Parts: sequence; structure tokens; C-alpha cells
Amino acid sequence: MDYKKIDGGICAAKGFRASGTYCGIKKSADDTPETKHKNDVCLLVSDGLCNTAAVYTQNKVKGAPLLVTKANLEESGGKAIAVIANSKNANTCNADGVEKAERMCELVADELLIEKEHVLVASTGVIGQVLPIEPIEKAVPTLVKELSYTGNREAATAIMTTDTVKKEYAVEFELDGKTCRIGGMAKGSGMIHPNMATTLNFITTDCAVSAKLLQRALSDVVKVTYNCLSIDGDTSTNDMVILMSNGLAENAEIEHFGDEYKVFKDALYEVMKELTKMLAKDGEGATKLIECRCEGAPNTDTAIAVAKSVICSNLFKCAVFGEDANWGRILCAIGYADADIDIEKVDVELESEYGKILVCEYGAGVDFSEDEAAEILKSDEIIVNVSLYDGYCKATAWGCDLTYDYVKINGDYRT
Amino acid sequence: MDYKKIDGGICAAKGFRASGTYCGIKKSADDTPETKHKNDVCLLVSDGLCNTAAVYTQNKVKGAPLLVTKANLEESGGKAIAVIANSKNANTCNADGVEKAERMCELVADELLIEKEHVLVASTGVIGQVLPIEPIEKAVPTLVKELSYTGNREAATAIMTTDTVKKEYAVEFELDGKTCRIGGMAKGSGMIHPNMATTLNFITTDCAVSAKLLQRALSDVVKVTYNCLSIDGDTSTNDMVILMSNGLAENAEIEHFGDEYKVFKDALYEVMKELTKMLAKDGEGATKLIECRCEGAPNTDTAIAVAKSVICSNLFKCAVFGEDANWGRILCAIGYADADIDIEKVDVELESEYGKILVCEYGAGVDFSEDEAAEILKSDEIIVNVSLYDGYCKATAWGCDLTYDYVKINGDYRT
Repeated sequence: MDYKKIDGGICAAKGFRASGTYCGIKKSADDTPETKHKNDVCLLVSDGLCNTAAVYTQNKVKGAPLLVTKANLEESGGKAIAVIANSKNANTCNADGVEKAERMCELVADELLIEKEHVLVASTGVIGQVLPIEPIEKAVPTLVKELSYTGNREAATAIMTTDTVKKEYAVEFELDGKTCRIGGMAKGSGMIHPNMATTLNFITTDCAVSAKLLQRALSDVVKVTYNCLSIDGDTSTNDMVILMSNGLAENAEIEHFGDEYKVFKDALYEVMKELTKMLAKDGEGATKLIECRCEGAPNTDTAIAVAKSVICSNLFKCAVFGEDANWGRILCAIGYADADIDIEKVDVELESEYGKILVCEYGAGVDFSEDEAAEILKSDEIIVNVSLYDGYCKATAWGCDLTYDYVKINGDYRT
Repeated sequence: MDYKKIDGGICAAKGFRASGTYCGIKKSADDTPETKHKNDVCLLVSDGLCNTAAVYTQNKVKGAPLLVTKANLEESGGKAIAVIANSKNANTCNADGVEKAERMCELVADELLIEKEHVLVASTGVIGQVLPIEPIEKAVPTLVKELSYTGNREAATAIMTTDTVKKEYAVEFELDGKTCRIGGMAKGSGMIHPNMATTLNFITTDCAVSAKLLQRALSDVVKVTYNCLSIDGDTSTNDMVILMSNGLAENAEIEHFGDEYKVFKDALYEVMKELTKMLAKDGEGATKLIECRCEGAPNTDTAIAVAKSVICSNLFKCAVFGEDANWGRILCAIGYADADIDIEKVDVELESEYGKILVCEYGAGVDFSEDEAAEILKSDEIIVNVSLYDGYCKATAWGCDLTYDYVKINGDYRT
């Protein structure tokens, strides 16, 4: 099956409009030069009622918007029409958080003349600062007025925090003789170590899929994409992925496992994997994307545990930043992965566009050319291949290097 | 019970001699200016046979010296006389690692005319580089010749890698009408996230304790000291704590739980806690010690999980470096701790020698003075008090801030 990459992000699928604007959630005096002119609130609206799946952070501290989104989806039986999201303030750990998040849904519902429970809400930014509602009250009429089938860029920039680039991806595929599309946008740069969810991600499709299978596909694909991503080991309080299907592609609704479901799920994987890589590459302060591919595992969970352990190691991340082929740190990280492995079988290779080199065989070092390894590590996309020789399962995890700029960005994030 | 702090480190207890020297394990061309004139190998010898307890890393990649030490202690029934240790090379992930580690024990045994299984061995440094044995062969006669009851400083500097200060601590206490002493030395600065063990730590005592209770005390105290320490989340392959008791204080051997055992265990806690704090404070690139005290927990494991989660958070570590009272990151870290907690009961305070301030109550932010908080965070020892209001258990964990220098040190460690 071919998935054609297309433009349009969350507006790529038929019948999805979006808009974004700057409303001044942070007082301009507090704004850093980078964020001053960036949108801070956005709206996504479907032309038809959507089957909607969602996954949320496993952090026990949950952002108020997440609680309200969850409650609304429960009340509506998994149906939604609109999503409002803001950056610069997470609306988390505030006594009036739920009240403010509900108010955001109400504002959108009133303006669009739809039910409040069909509006979902998400926030990202600083934790524990009271969210000013006035700027959002003023912004909602503008957001509704400016809704557009090409508004994806305005929306994608509105959810950025320390992100340096907006993250959008979309694909097109054939199903049932109809052209279907899946597109998404994501934000995130720090506090990223998703656990059954990730930082804000919104995915839209016009492909008709039953609510049950939509949730199943989302949960399955999250496990091998966003949940295999780590920037800094910190699981956010506001992680959320929302997947909305309005069925406007007019394919026969996918209600059973089978070929059609597989086509849809693979397309969803494509979009979520690409967004995951964009998130990793734009990790706070990052100069290099690190991809660890673990193969030869007895099961997928083992492969995930090993791959994630490698891309999470602060020490290895620093070595990648320094372009130092310090493979001992890879072995060390494999060794403390929460998985049952026989270290004496393990091979490790370093790879990039500049070549590939074996650095460890049977769990011990091999004589390799440091010059050649240094050349490979010059790339801004580094691949670590780990072979366990203990089965046929595999998984990939994505992360980034740890740099001076990560420390700089996070040494003084709030001011 | 009073524990008097005394000098002498591993030589504080009666009948322990030590020595250290520079033998050139790394070719001098490779040596950085900092390490060039530092000792790189040391020897510790007891005047009498010691009951010896040990704990080892839970990393599945285990250094060869650790395997040999474990085998020797099994063969000798938990008795030892001497320990040889080197820095600059971990002798881990090398095909000839065990052979080299055994050779180190043999060299010492031959020179001291003792059994090989009474010699323990430890190594620390780069993983995956073949250990040159010749420099050690040459050094052993010197080490034996220079053994001294005041040789603790020479030994403590020989195990340093990226450490900026040597770590020694010792206490004296009365037991059974006799004066007993416990002293220790530790190394470690990076790759520190101990799990049932920690980076190299050697503790000696002249207090007579049965082998069984010695191991029990060590395992119990490790859990609430070294295992509550994290510099960077990376569990080392060569972690090891060795506790040797030669009984030369001539107290009646402690063979049962009771008052004497408690006195000994508390003294051991004192030494290991102080060494733990030294390790945290000298974390790679660190400018500040972070201590998280969790109280009001339903059990000790919950308190440990919460306290460790806070001191492990890269984001909070960066905030401490930037002296930013970003308490939302503390709440976030508590939220993803592997423990069952009710976040709506949680209070958080920041404390230092400059004062104390409540920043979060019932899981939500309180209105506090940012100026006052900034003043408190200027200290180089920051305490985070977390109250769970869900029981009477407590625990403390130690870590350090994450700084530019951590990245610098680890971007190019091998050269």
C-alpha cells in the first residue's frame, strides 16, 4: 500500500477547518522575543460530527483541560466537532483549572451553536500559573470568523512553546475506491517522555472508522510511535492525543479488523511516526535526532524497552552531541533496560547517511576506526542498530542529543 | 547515640592500611591535564581477615572486576583481606576482562603472600577499552611497599574519575565499652543512578559483626542512602559497595538484632549518608546539591519513589541551576513517580540556609514571593520538602542540578 505524503496538516482531511491567533495569554512584558508574535490559541472544527478517540498522560498530575476533554467525550459517547487549544499556560495545578477549561469549551460552543460536550480543550505551557480567561474570551469570535480549510499553519503555530518549528504531516490513500486522508499536528520540545500518550497531538481524518476501531488503532499506534519518544525523561501532565474521524471521504465505515482496518492503521502509523520524528528532532536544544532500532527481540515490549533505554541515556545523548563514539554507554543503557536480555549476544552498529560501522559484537568491543565513526556521527540524524539475536521482534525509539542549549532553555523557562 | 566524626577515611578503623599511586593506565598522551598527576590505582589491606559484605549493580552488563569479586567472596565464604582498585578504565565489555581482573587479584595475593580469593578487585572509568595489565603489574610492589595506616588520601584520590574532590567520611562510637570506628571512601560523579548498589564505595570497620548481620546492615542502609542518589539516571555497570569488618575493636561480635546492631547500623548509615551527599554534590558539572525529603507517606517505598522522582527530573534540575522556583516541575515529577499518591493532598516547600517557602498546597500553587524564593535558591544546597499527608513514613533522596558543564564533560569524555 502506498501512502502519498500531502500538505495541509490537520486540514488535509476533507471537512476540517482551523484558525489560530495571538490573544496575549502571557502579558507581553513577559514574552520572550521568540514567542512575542507567535499565535497562542487555535481552533479546529469539523464540518460533521466526528467519532473521536483519545489517549491521555499517565502522569497522576493531570491538567484540567485533559479532565474536561475526557468528561466531554464520556458525556457525548466519543463524539466531537471542535477542539480549542492554547499555549503559554498549561492550566494545570490551578484551583480554578477545571472551571476555566469548561469555560473555554462553552465559549466555542456558544459561538458555533453546538453542544458544549462536542468541544474538546487542550492547554500547554507553564504549570501552576492561573490562566487568564479574558484574552481567550476576546479571541474566540475571531477564531470562529477566521476558520479556514487552509488554516492548519495558523493552528500549528499556536500550540508551539519552546518548539522551534511547527510540526505537521499528512498522507493520502485509497480505500474502498475512495480517497482518504489523515493529517496531524503536534507540539512539544521538552517535558517529553510519553507514557500511553504524548504531548499535544491532534489528528484528523475523513476516513470513516467506527469509534471502537478508531480508539484501538490510536492506542496501538501510540505504543510504537509517541510512546517510543523521549526528549528528557519527563512525562508531561498535559499529554493528550486526539484523533477525529468525520467520515466525509464516504468510504464504508470500517467496523471490523481486516484489510481496510490495516490500510487505515498503517496510514495512521505513517503520520504519527513522522510527527514523532519531528518532535524528537526539535527536542529542546537538540542538534541531532537519535533513532535506536532494536531487532532480534523475543517480543515487542523487550525491543521497545531496549530502544527507549538507549535514547533516554543522558550520557549517550551527551556523547552524540560531542560526536564521540562512546558505545560503552549504549551497552550500559541496554544493561539497565527493564527487559530480559543476554548481553553476550548483543551487536551494536552506528549508522547515518555517511555510513555504518560495527562497534560492539557479542557484547564486547570490536576494533573499529574512530575516524570512520567520527565521520558517521557528523550527521544530524544518528541511527543506533541493536541486535539481540533472541527472536524476531523489533521496535524503534526516537530521541535527541543533550546540549548546552537544553540547559539554557530550561534554566530559566518561566521568565 | 552520638557518632563523632573523625578523620582517616578507610584507614580510620583500626588495622586498615592503604596506598595509592599513578601507574599510567591511560597513555599520558591521552591524559587530560586534570587527571595527569592523579593516582590511578590503590590498595586497601586489613591486618586481619575480614567478614565482608558487598552489593553490586543491577545493570545486566556487569564489569569483569565485579564478577571476579563476587566469585572470590563466594569461594572464601565472605572473607577478605585486601582490595585493589583502579580508575581510568572500567575493564567492562572486554573479551579478556575476567582474565585481567583475576590477574590483578593474583598480583596482590602473590605480593602479600595471601590467598587469591581473599583479594577483591574494582575498576572504574571508560567502558569497552582493553585494560593494559603491565602498568598494574609494575605498580603492585610499590603499592604494597607504601601501605600505611594513614594512606587513605592516596587511595581515595586513586579512584577518582571526573570527580573534582575525593570523598571520605568516618565516625567513631562506643560499643560494649570499646571504641569502634567506621570509615569509607567513594568515587563517582557521572553515570550515577544506583540500584541496589552504587558506584565504587569501600567501607571499613573494626567493629566485630557477624557476616550475616554485616550483609543485612549494608543492604538495608544502601536502600536509603546510595540507592536514593541520582546524578544522571544512568545505572553504572561497575557499581559496587564493599564493607569489611576486621573486628580489631575487640567488641563482642554482633550476632543478633538488638541494641548493639542498631548502634552499628546507625553509624553505618551516618557514613554512607554523608558519602552519598558528597557524591551528589560533586555530580558532573553540578553547582548545587538537591535534597528532596518526602514525608507523610504510607510506606518507605512510596517516600523513596517520590523523592527520587523529584531529584531525577532533568527539567527540575535545570530550574535549580537557573535558580528558578518552577515548582510545577516538582509536581509533574511527583505525578509520574511509580507510587500511589493523592496529588490533591500534596504540599511542597523550598528550603535552604536562607529560608523556607511554601510554593504548593493541596496540589495547587499558592501565592508566594518570587523574590523570596529566588533568595532561597541562591544557596548551593537546596532542600525540597514534599508532604503527602497519607501516613507516617519518610525518605530522602539526593541529586544535583543539570548544567552546561555536565554536557561539556560528557560530550567528550573519552579523549
